Amino acid sequence: MNEFGIGVLGFGTVGAGVVQGLQDNGDLIASRLGVQPVVRAIADLDLTTDRGVHVNPDLLTTDAEAVIDNPDINVIVELIGGTNIARDFITRALEAGKPVVTANKALLAKHGEELFALAESKSTEIYFGASVGGGIPIIRALREGLIANHVHSIHGILNGTCNYILTRMEEDGMAFDTVLAEAQEKGFAEADPALDIDGMDTAHKAVILGRLAYGLHASLDDITIEGIRGLSEADIKLARGLGYRIKLLAIVKKVGSEIDVRVHPAMVPLDHVIASIRGVFNAVLVDGDMTGDTLYYGKGAGREPTASTVIGDIGDIMKNLQAGSARRFPPSGNGVGTVSLMSPGDVRTRYYLRLSLLDQPGTLSQVAATLGEHGISIASVLQQESHAGDYVPVVVVTHEAVESDCDAAIQSIMQLDVVHDRPVRIRIEE
Amino acid sequence: MNEFGIGVLGFGTVGAGVVQGLQDNGDLIASRLGVQPVVRAIADLDLTTDRGVHVNPDLLTTDAEAVIDNPDINVIVELIGGTNIARDFITRALEAGKPVVTANKALLAKHGEELFALAESKSTEIYFGASVGGGIPIIRALREGLIANHVHSIHGILNGTCNYILTRMEEDGMAFDTVLAEAQEKGFAEADPALDIDGMDTAHKAVILGRLAYGLHASLDDITIEGIRGLSEADIKLARGLGYRIKLLAIVKKVGSEIDVRVHPAMVPLDHVIASIRGVFNAVLVDGDMTGDTLYYGKGAGREPTASTVIGDIGDIMKNLQAGSARRFPPSGNGVGTVSLMSPGDVRTRYYLRLSLLDQPGTLSQVAATLGEHGISIASVLQQESHAGDYVPVVVVTHEAVESDCDAAIQSIMQLDVVHDRPVRIRIEE
Repeated sequence: MNEFGIGVLGFGTVGAGVVQGLQDNGDLIASRLGVQPVVRAIADLDLTTDRGVHVNPDLLTTDAEAVIDNPDINVIVELIGGTNIARDFITRALEAGKPVVTANKALLAKHGEELFALAESKSTEIYFGASVGGGIPIIRALREGLIANHVHSIHGILNGTCNYILTRMEEDGMAFDTVLAEAQEKGFAEADPALDIDGMDTAHKAVILGRLAYGLHASLDDITIEGIRGLSEADIKLARGLGYRIKLLAIVKKVGSEIDVRVHPAMVPLDHVIASIRGVFNAVLVDGDMTGDTLYYGKGAGREPTASTVIGDIGDIMKNLQAGSARRFPPSGNGVGTVSLMSPGDVRTRYYLRLSLLDQPGTLSQVAATLGEHGISIASVLQQESHAGDYVPVVVVTHEAVESDCDAAIQSIMQLDVVHDRPVRIRIEE
Repeated sequence: MNEFGIGVLGFGTVGAGVVQGLQDNGDLIASRLGVQPVVRAIADLDLTTDRGVHVNPDLLTTDAEAVIDNPDINVIVELIGGTNIARDFITRALEAGKPVVTANKALLAKHGEELFALAESKSTEIYFGASVGGGIPIIRALREGLIANHVHSIHGILNGTCNYILTRMEEDGMAFDTVLAEAQEKGFAEADPALDIDGMDTAHKAVILGRLAYGLHASLDDITIEGIRGLSEADIKLARGLGYRIKLLAIVKKVGSEIDVRVHPAMVPLDHVIASIRGVFNAVLVDGDMTGDTLYYGKGAGREPTASTVIGDIGDIMKNLQAGSARRFPPSGNGVGTVSLMSPGDVRTRYYLRLSLLDQPGTLSQVAATLGEHGISIASVLQQESHAGDYVPVVVVTHEAVESDCDAAIQSIMQLDVVHDRPVRIRIEE
């Protein structure tokens, strides 16, 4: 059986999972593929921490460049993360014509075009299945399975930490800070959770999905990225009363020749399957013109799920090396024509606005008039009985409106004397 | 760009969908693949019915064998269905070394081993993505994406007609016969619905999944196949009260070196994602040793979704032809060792039993004693107040028990004077 040498850069959580998976299930994988992956080197700056996997010490090195340059190593697996040395190492591998597997979503979101172009110029390739959705083969589904489809839209729950927090807030009536602290204690959330809860991790994945589906070059600076930090139990409860659940969504949607890409908490109908995704699980809903909706669900992170997808990519690359058929499927959207990123202000959607209004006659009509002046019409209003204080919470749900109008309307509403605090705005996805 | 000739056998619903898909999205597909699929012939006995797609009349023929033998045709797409002439045509194509795409689940369930062996002996291949799950790329996920995983189990909702009927029965409190009649009227159910509602269609798919995951040769005669015809609204309501929803499931599960394969209505916990699959949608839940649970969801039938997957398979085959790399991934489970089909009587699961008991003291204890004699212990009992008549419905939920014991216990219970009618038995999947 043909053997292919694998070099692993980064012996952290996922790196150790890949090495372990190739050890434990190596015979299974070789039997299925008809080729044998052999880990020939593992590079990391830290060679002493116990990763819970036994490896021959001769395989370990701190010299990643030597691993890349080793002629017995055919596939480079980059699991270092970050956008600096990972970028250098991947570039070095591609320059040498060696195919790369990576799970590095930040790097691909920021420098994907450059790296894919380099791979193409060197007739080699980058597989990146584990960059979105961890153990869920969503990249493979989009890249290969749905190849006959024009993609209308993609909606993803792509950050397990956020979905866990939102689930606990709703089901157990807990406050954001309490759940976050508990999740950090249990290891579900990072000590520095900003990348997750402020939406950037999800945004990296949204950019990758937009590139794959549409060939779109979207900069993180040009899309709406809102996290879940500002969400209150009150909004979660009110949403539920209106028939919605709040999820942090990555939205990638084709509207004419523009692609609407954004990340924010969104209200989704309770009876929609995306609303049923609980806890740390991820899910991606793809609407294709032939398939209609298909959904992919599973663990979006973690040592073994992510390693499963990395190994699946290694398998593809080995088959491509064996057949001399690199670049079997394109890494970014082909054939959909020229598209451009929609300006965030041009997005059209429905809005939930929670206002704190002075408890006196006529206040709501001032708000309604202000919305009307900005071309926004109201679908429903929910005003609860006042319990205490001078201000009452009032929820306004709008019909579809343009985001820049909504921004302007909120600015105007905040000028009204009867309004206390900045209105809470949550977008609605039907 | 390389062109490959496609011959379509069977110009019915899916055949027309494939031809239409290749027409409408052909440029997209070619751009993504770097090769061009060209439909060079379409064979059907009926050349007059309007399929809603315009084709050059020169492409149409009643002579399928001429299509197979045409040297300009590289890929044979079998969409005739059934196990007779479809088998002959696929055999002829494979004998000639031509790769085949098929959506024919009945044929693959019954004669898959023979056809896959023939393909192997001729160094060609069969792609069968659309045989399970219609537009959902579940076969691809199992065959390629999850290649690093030992599969613990697969649970599938694989028949849209049944899931639609069960959804309407639960949500609208309708009787089985009423929903079926309505579904037939709307075209969701066949005029002869037996293949769907009696579970055979789902069983075909279960056999294919068992072969793919484990290399298991399971005969349809040797597995439990129960449909939804006997289900009553009463059981659906009682299940709901106990925290479950009834779904028709395909279950494929590894237990030691045996594979438990069965198709029957099962009670699944309401908060499990599989319980949230509504209407005509299908879903497949795969538990792999590395990924944990992953789920795939979408339209399991219909012209365009099924055609999408057929075209995906055509794409793979064209890439394999281009690279001279047929048989990229094995069509049935490799590397899992020798497995055998579990005897249905050896299955271990929990049971819901609805009994009709004489409304007098001591009857329940007789039932409990009978269950105990067969080694079955009771987890809970639900007895509703008697409204009328001499018999009352009593629900017994058991702990895990062996199916042959449960069968014997039911036989004994039916001998009791206090029991009216055959008990209704529904298995529980946690």
